[in-house]
Formats: sequence, structure tokens, C-alpha cells
Amino acid sequence: MAGPELAAIIAGLPATVPFVGPEVIERNTGSKFRARLGANESPFGPSPKVIAAIAEAAPDVWTYGDSENHELKEALASHLGTPMDTIVIGEGIDGLLGLTCRLYLEPGDKVVTSLGAYPTFNYHVAAQGAELVTVPYDENDRESLSELLDSVLAVKPKIVYLANPDNPMGTWWSAGEITRFVAAIPEETLIVLDEAYGETAPAGTLPPITLMRPNLLRYRTFSKAYGLAGMRVGYAIGTAQAVAAFDRIRNHFGVTKLSQIAAGAALADQDYLEQTLAAIATGREEIARRTKDLGLKPIPSATNFVAIDCGADNAYATLVLNAMQDRGIFIRKPAVARLNRCIRMSVGTPKDIALACDVLEDIIETATR
Amino acid sequence: MAGPELAAIIAGLPATVPFVGPEVIERNTGSKFRARLGANESPFGPSPKVIAAIAEAAPDVWTYGDSENHELKEALASHLGTPMDTIVIGEGIDGLLGLTCRLYLEPGDKVVTSLGAYPTFNYHVAAQGAELVTVPYDENDRESLSELLDSVLAVKPKIVYLANPDNPMGTWWSAGEITRFVAAIPEETLIVLDEAYGETAPAGTLPPITLMRPNLLRYRTFSKAYGLAGMRVGYAIGTAQAVAAFDRIRNHFGVTKLSQIAAGAALADQDYLEQTLAAIATGREEIARRTKDLGLKPIPSATNFVAIDCGADNAYATLVLNAMQDRGIFIRKPAVARLNRCIRMSVGTPKDIALACDVLEDIIETATR
Repeated sequence: MAGPELAAIIAGLPATVPFVGPEVIERNTGSKFRARLGANESPFGPSPKVIAAIAEAAPDVWTYGDSENHELKEALASHLGTPMDTIVIGEGIDGLLGLTCRLYLEPGDKVVTSLGAYPTFNYHVAAQGAELVTVPYDENDRESLSELLDSVLAVKPKIVYLANPDNPMGTWWSAGEITRFVAAIPEETLIVLDEAYGETAPAGTLPPITLMRPNLLRYRTFSKAYGLAGMRVGYAIGTAQAVAAFDRIRNHFGVTKLSQIAAGAALADQDYLEQTLAAIATGREEIARRTKDLGLKPIPSATNFVAIDCGADNAYATLVLNAMQDRGIFIRKPAVARLNRCIRMSVGTPKDIALACDVLEDIIETATR
Repeated sequence: MAGPELAAIIAGLPATVPFVGPEVIERNTGSKFRARLGANESPFGPSPKVIAAIAEAAPDVWTYGDSENHELKEALASHLGTPMDTIVIGEGIDGLLGLTCRLYLEPGDKVVTSLGAYPTFNYHVAAQGAELVTVPYDENDRESLSELLDSVLAVKPKIVYLANPDNPMGTWWSAGEITRFVAAIPEETLIVLDEAYGETAPAGTLPPITLMRPNLLRYRTFSKAYGLAGMRVGYAIGTAQAVAAFDRIRNHFGVTKLSQIAAGAALADQDYLEQTLAAIATGREEIARRTKDLGLKPIPSATNFVAIDCGADNAYATLVLNAMQDRGIFIRKPAVARLNRCIRMSVGTPKDIALACDVLEDIIETATR
């Protein structure tokens, strides 16, 4: 083949992508979605103060953003009650997961995760030539803490991944259960604790911020409850030593100036966050109510989406998903057995939930007539 | 040491950063700069149409940006006259250089560059465990095409890096000379041709867009002439095969929604770009005139900055730089001999150029009294 050779690990990677975006589906099908309920975004949008802050700062984008994200980090440190040097800010959790894999993984290293958990993490693991070891979800559609722990003790991986609350199922563990899990993991294994949906979870889900261990990194984001998915701002929390390592490889000017400003303004408007959280809780209940009425089984959720057990197998849930997409409703579904008996609907506006549930009702009634 | 071990290459990296931002210097010194002329940003700012587009789109940032950057890519393809599949968009040239190093470099691979050329590229090379081989600039402060070629033929590196126009010296080669250089590099070596300052260069500097080879990637940005440094949008141009490889490892949702919109609006306003280019040319001439009057030797520049030979050694230029910074003028200087006899001043507004040159005049006159 002509041209320079790719690195061996890269040459062996598939050309697939971990998440096909809704715009890509729209271009492929040639029609626009009527409701966008597949990417776990917040249709309640960012705070009006965030929108104003972006507009006000727009003329200043000719300067690079602060390479240390100092003001945002200071605000986060104050809000969370943790020193600034325990926080690293990056281009969304996705960006930080990629950096984490590059920091710790060498070819042939093992990584433990749940089968069906976040595919973008797996994508970054593959790029390092590391090997995934998966354990099944438990019978209540939770990531299984006991299976994860047993696997860690057996294979001694470099990293174990756990999302709490979980995506794609929306299930969760209590802070106490997570804390005991963390304590049981040997120090040689890094715990990647993905708390992207932490804000939408019940009180008592997130361990205290003082839970610090040399082998623990916790990941949070402005993409979900704060309504800033398009701005790409996430952060990781860990010991100062673990956090400092990111400076060795990160794109120091990678977080845009407006993203830093928007995230700071979002953090400062906790009243708006509370409103959003209430709206998300209401939407979750509405999705549960409507889908129960159809004879489906919505799974209790601590996130801004609801996984819905369609009561049959993957083939049936796939038919439902495809019918929804054909009728202009963007939702998604878990990819692996037995999670794939479900579809997953993000909390939309009341109007979009009603539209999606009306379409779903029509599809289910036609199918079961 | 407690905690999981970093990958061996990462553990061996220095904890230094390639570019200390002006905000970091301000925090360290406790005082704000009066003029910001050290990061080669455009003080003429983005087009008013860009500012309006950002403000208009601000309420929509709750959705992720398009993972394929389709609209921006389409506009670039049309503007440049090259197929969409020959373009990859990323988080600034810095982000794309990092991805390029990850795609091609394995530990122990060699990379040829000029001693004193772009340090952020070297930073990404180091993160892959590859080895830099450097050649000196020529006697006219240009990256030496003949030295680079000789080194490539001798060490058979995986990558050769060349910026045209050059940073930090502002010098350049003609399109014909670059085209001959590209043709002479063996296909096994990837040519990373950094054209960040392409827009500000004289006609006949950039090879035609049709210069496509399996081992050539050309890098451009919205950070410089388009005035969007804070938005982090760069792109690389190459064969469809070379461009497709980025999809295997890039952060697919990494370019923010507003960044895609801002870059698209900037590209659409070529009249504004022309105004900016005229203002940059005028500013370059003014810096040259003022510094010549001080007995210094401004080096002819094809960029939005001017390297200024202070007529003595590194120690003298460093004294000048420090005195400028002490008096509130942010400029920088090349780091290695013999380029380090120079200081480097970005084209500011007429007011900032006047301020900086007044301060410089005072420093030089005091020093030579």
C-alpha cells in the first residue's frame, strides 16, 4: 500500500465509530427527526445566564482560552469543596477518558468493564491496544459490583470502568456501596468512576467528594444536567498526583474560551440547575407512566433517560426502535444481550415526550393487535 | 509509589508544558498585560457576522455538535476546491498534530524537524516515545529544505515536520520550492506541512490544493487570520485514505457546536478576511519600520508576527524580552540558538503596536545609552 504505514495498533483498529450521531442518521435517511431523544441531552437548555454570557464573550474569541482553565477550576473547587489541584478539565468526559487510557494503558494490558457499558470508553481502550474483559450486568440491570470486583481480583487489570448512575440502563448504586467497592479494588488498578449523570441521581448516590484514593478518578460533565453538550466541558477529580499526570499529554489549549465561560456561568446558576432537575424528574415519571400504560416495563432511572423493557427479545425491541426512527423519533437502544430487550428514551420537553409516547403507542398497538 | 503505574513512556515524560499562556504569566506575576502580542492571535477579532452567529446559536448548545462536522467540511471543500473526504476537522492544529503522532508513531520511531520549530508538535512526538532528529535553520532564518531532505534520506524517519510560513521566524518558501521538497521525500515518510499562517502569506506561497500525495498532510486553522483562536478549529487536508485514518482515534464529538458554526460563518465572510489581511500587512510594516528606526533588524515575515533580530546574543534578547514583560507587554522569543537572538512580536492593533514599540524604544535606548 502506498504511503507511510500506520502504527501497528492503529492499523488493526476497525474503521467504525462508537456513536452514530443524529445528524449522521438524518443525512443518511434524508429526513429530519421530529424529536431528539436519543443522545441524553437536556432539552431544557442552558441557563439564560449562560446564553447571555456566551453572547457577551463572543467578540473575545480571538484570544486563546486559558490553558489552565483557572477560573472554571477555581469555581468548581469551591462548589465541590475540593482543592483546585484535584481537578482536571477537558473536552468532555470523552476527551478525558481518551487521555486516561493513554496515560495508563500499554498494549496487552487488561481493562475490566460491564458488557454493554459505555462504548466510547471501549473505543479509547482499543486505541491503546489494550484488552477488554467484560462481566454481565446483574439481574436488576445494574452494573454488577460483585462481578466487577471478582474480575478485577482474577485478571488484575490496569483499569476498571464503572458508571454510577449507569448508561444505558439508568440504574445506580448507593454511595455506601460504591465506597465499599472502591475500597476493595487493589491499588494497582485504576478505578474510572463515570459520574456523568451524578446531578440527576437521588441524594446519597454520589460518594462524598472526600473519597480520594491514588487509584480513583471520578468523571463529571456539563453536557447533561447543565445542558451544555455542545460545549464539550468535562472534568475529572482525583488525587493531585493522578490529576497532574494529565498535563503531560493533554491538549493544553483544547477547551474553548466560550466553553470555559459557559461552564462557569452554568455552575454559578444553581437555581436553574434545580429547575432543570425537577423538570427531568417529572419527564422521567411521565415516560414511565406512559410506557407502563402500554404494558412495557420502564426501568427505574437515576439519569435523564429511561430504559424501557419492551417485554420480549432484541429482535422485537429493534423493530420498535426502527419504527420510532422511521416516524421521526430519535431514540436508541442498548447493544448487547440481555440489555438489548430495551429501548432507551431521553427525557425531552413535555411536548416531545408526548409525541414520542404517542408514536410508541401506535407502534405497540399495531404490533400487538 | 502508591496507585496504578503510568504507562512507561508517559512516566518518562517531563511535567513541563510546551507553551506557557499569557494568563498563566499574569497569575504568576500578579499583574495584567497592557498589550497581548505574544500568541500570534488576531486582535482584529472575528467577523461581526461570526459574533452574530455565535450569539444566535447560543441557546442551541444543549445538543452535541455534528460528529462529522458536515456543514463546515462541505463549506471548506467548496472554498478550497477539494473533495470533502480529503478534509478532517479537529480541535485546532494542536489537536490534529496530536492525533497524527498517535496514528503514525511507535516508540523508537524517528521524526525530523528543525531545531527551534513548533514545540507543541515536539510535545506530541515525545508522548509517543518517538525520537526527534533536528536540523538547523538556514542562514536566512528559514527552515532549511535541503537540510530537512538530507536528514530524511539519512535517517528514514516516520514523519518530517515543516511549517510554511514558519513559526517562530515568519520566513517562507515559494509554492514551487515546497512542491519540489514534497516530491523528493520518500513515500514512507509522512510530511506534516503546517500551513497555520497560510492566509497571511504572499500569493504563490501555498502549493495548489491539488498537491495530494499518500504521504502528505497539510494543516490549517481558524485561529490566526480568521481570529478564532479561542474556538479551537483546525483542519488537515490529505488523500482520502490518510484523512479516513483520523476517524479511528479522534474524539468524534470533540469540536464544539459553536466552533463549527463560528468557523463556517468566518469562512463565508471572505471580505472581512481580506480586511484583516490588509490590517495585518500594515501592522507588519509598522513593526518593521519602528524597529528598524531603533537599529534592530526585523526579519521579513509572511505571518501575523515579526521576528526581530536584536543585533546581539540570546542574553541580550532575553533581557529585552523580560523588560518588555515587566512593563506589561506580552511578547515571546525563539528558544534555541541562533534564532534566540530575536524577539517575536505579533501584529496587534495600531494602538498596541505603538505602545509596544514605545516601550521597546525606551528599553533599547536605556540599554545603549
